[in-house]
Amino acid sequence: MAILVQKFGGTSVANAQKIRRAAERALKAHKEGSQVVVVASARGKQTDELIADALEVNPNPPKREMDMLLSTGEQQTVSLFAMALASMGQKAISFTGQQIELVTDSFHTKARIQSIGADRIRQKLDQGFICVVAGFQGVDEEGNITTLGRGGSDTSAVALAAALGANYCDIYTDVDGIYTADPRKYPKAIKMDQVSYDEILELASLGAGVMHGRSIEFGKKYNVRIHVRSSMNEHTGTIITREVPQMEGILVSGATCQKDLAKIGLINLDNKPGHAARVFAHLAAHKVSVNDIIQTELNEAKANLSFTVAQADLDAAKSAIEEIRKQVGCEQVKISADIAEVSVVGVGMRSHCGVAERMFKALADKNINIDAITTSEIRISCLVKVKDMDTALVAVCDAFELDKPADKRKTV
Amino acid sequence: MAILVQKFGGTSVANAQKIRRAAERALKAHKEGSQVVVVASARGKQTDELIADALEVNPNPPKREMDMLLSTGEQQTVSLFAMALASMGQKAISFTGQQIELVTDSFHTKARIQSIGADRIRQKLDQGFICVVAGFQGVDEEGNITTLGRGGSDTSAVALAAALGANYCDIYTDVDGIYTADPRKYPKAIKMDQVSYDEILELASLGAGVMHGRSIEFGKKYNVRIHVRSSMNEHTGTIITREVPQMEGILVSGATCQKDLAKIGLINLDNKPGHAARVFAHLAAHKVSVNDIIQTELNEAKANLSFTVAQADLDAAKSAIEEIRKQVGCEQVKISADIAEVSVVGVGMRSHCGVAERMFKALADKNINIDAITTSEIRISCLVKVKDMDTALVAVCDAFELDKPADKRKTV
Repeated sequence: MAILVQKFGGTSVANAQKIRRAAERALKAHKEGSQVVVVASARGKQTDELIADALEVNPNPPKREMDMLLSTGEQQTVSLFAMALASMGQKAISFTGQQIELVTDSFHTKARIQSIGADRIRQKLDQGFICVVAGFQGVDEEGNITTLGRGGSDTSAVALAAALGANYCDIYTDVDGIYTADPRKYPKAIKMDQVSYDEILELASLGAGVMHGRSIEFGKKYNVRIHVRSSMNEHTGTIITREVPQMEGILVSGATCQKDLAKIGLINLDNKPGHAARVFAHLAAHKVSVNDIIQTELNEAKANLSFTVAQADLDAAKSAIEEIRKQVGCEQVKISADIAEVSVVGVGMRSHCGVAERMFKALADKNINIDAITTSEIRISCLVKVKDMDTALVAVCDAFELDKPADKRKTV
Repeated sequence: MAILVQKFGGTSVANAQKIRRAAERALKAHKEGSQVVVVASARGKQTDELIADALEVNPNPPKREMDMLLSTGEQQTVSLFAMALASMGQKAISFTGQQIELVTDSFHTKARIQSIGADRIRQKLDQGFICVVAGFQGVDEEGNITTLGRGGSDTSAVALAAALGANYCDIYTDVDGIYTADPRKYPKAIKMDQVSYDEILELASLGAGVMHGRSIEFGKKYNVRIHVRSSMNEHTGTIITREVPQMEGILVSGATCQKDLAKIGLINLDNKPGHAARVFAHLAAHKVSVNDIIQTELNEAKANLSFTVAQADLDAAKSAIEEIRKQVGCEQVKISADIAEVSVVGVGMRSHCGVAERMFKALADKNINIDAITTSEIRISCLVKVKDMDTALVAVCDAFELDKPADKRKTV
């Protein structure tokens, strides 16, 4: 019998009525012949409220205790969800992360899943139960409760689907699916029917933020088809799957942007092996997370090295660089605050040329200056001034016809 | 090093400020040289709120899921409590019932403790931690979360004290201790300094309700001295302990009353062996809980049998009796609704006569008619009309001088 994992986010279980509606959906799938495992998040804004409770007691709460506290939110949802199913005459049982042996490492508040002992779920499924599992949480080797970080319920759901050999994982949310661009910035954006794991990873890490990145990595690794869809209707949403041939016909699948970046340029650095490594090791020691890195050789003796950081990390980055700049012979440090990044993503880029050219032309036509360019195999990103970001995104979306279904777009 | 268990009830941890105050108390005991284990209840009215959430989803929620839900209340308190201690620079760690291996039977919502594997607590205490344990909850052999029933945190605390070999268990509450009578009914009541396990069991089961009955049974079985005291001040409260010789000098330790009872009388029953047993087996099969039973033989052939039940059970009791009355030859069933019970309790009764006489005289002096009388070794109870209850209690309290310290009372 096919196993279906259904994940309901906080907005889909925010109150009794919504929990009952979600339970009806699980029950429908069960009646249609699937063995159903539900993964649920904390209700509505409850996690935020618990965080506020914690900060009132201790402005800097120990992470282990934070996990102990926050994990209660999901535990409440799953017991209520199982009660809702019971009221519909359906056998149902809720489980904590500990009860399904979802074992993680001990990095509290951002633990990584190590294994899932899904035996008890299988047993209950075979007895006709719907199993309702608390997302976001696990337990370390010592039995301490851990959590997987914000959005971790997605990861729980996909990992559980993988562990159970489920082919599909439905992610119910308050949007219809994943759009070619953020509709708040590009109102003509349309829902993608299909997108590859790699594309969504690039889109998510760049800020599109519909799915938790690690959940996509799990899906890719274990080939779980992830269906992101609305909890309000029965429409098909967006299916995240492995790359299929027809995806290559699509030049660009989506576009995204990210603000609140700063660029730091090290001018006239000594062009010696190991200097770049030393700079970034030093930044890492100061807990500065570095995004795009661009190095250009000026001549045999000197090079320029620049990188972007989140604006929140700028002060830490500046003082780290001040400590090390003389050791690497850097003559000048140039800071550009208020930097934004606009990116296009598509596996089709691999086999099509002309994508970069079209993107640069779209920006040039709007008189937008490109500060720097970085690329991956399936992504092109341009750094621009923050004030230009929204215009740049619309220009790029229009240029790649992200308001049209994929099969209606020009390919080159 | 001496181990001290401190239990804080819901009102003592109702908000951040109260949690911090309770944490300061634990810290003080730790600094004074005790190894401290805190047991905490859910904050304020949280359990009631969670029950309301459940009933909104399902008017008749499965008990297993109820336990899953309600146990989150205590889990939240203990994590916040540990955070509060951490903010004071104290090493602290919170535990669920599952994490300290508090194993119970599987009677959800009123499970009974079977064993406590306190190794992890001992280890953490030896490392200098204050351990903060979620009261009210455990886990059954299969790993399902169970709860111990209302007031179960008291039981958790005393059982943990027993498992750890702690000599003292402090129960912090919003009252100064246990009074000789309910101060709302007898304002001159005074705090008892000491009371025996047996006395408090009689007082608790009769409705005084300060401590959970099972916690007292644990205390008695494992000889844990229980100190019921206020979380608002440093005063000594009431110590519940094993019977000591000076207690025998006290005629009556306390008085209590209970309303909402009904008396059912079976008149002219066949006086045959096994008939009473058949009646009560039938009532038990109808889930009717029976309190005092009084049987009087009328002659060789006939007897009267009466008993009290909670008014809530009266309808069930009546229909159960109607089903069986002919089989036992009962000629008439007499129902007295609106019955109340007034009781005096004291281990001193064992060695003093005249207690019953003094009680009956006190009631007679107020023209209160006694409907029936039942006694145990350390208790005398009179059934009276509900309208007479409050007057009866005051009369009895005055007669036994329950407004005076124990050593200032007349003994006979």
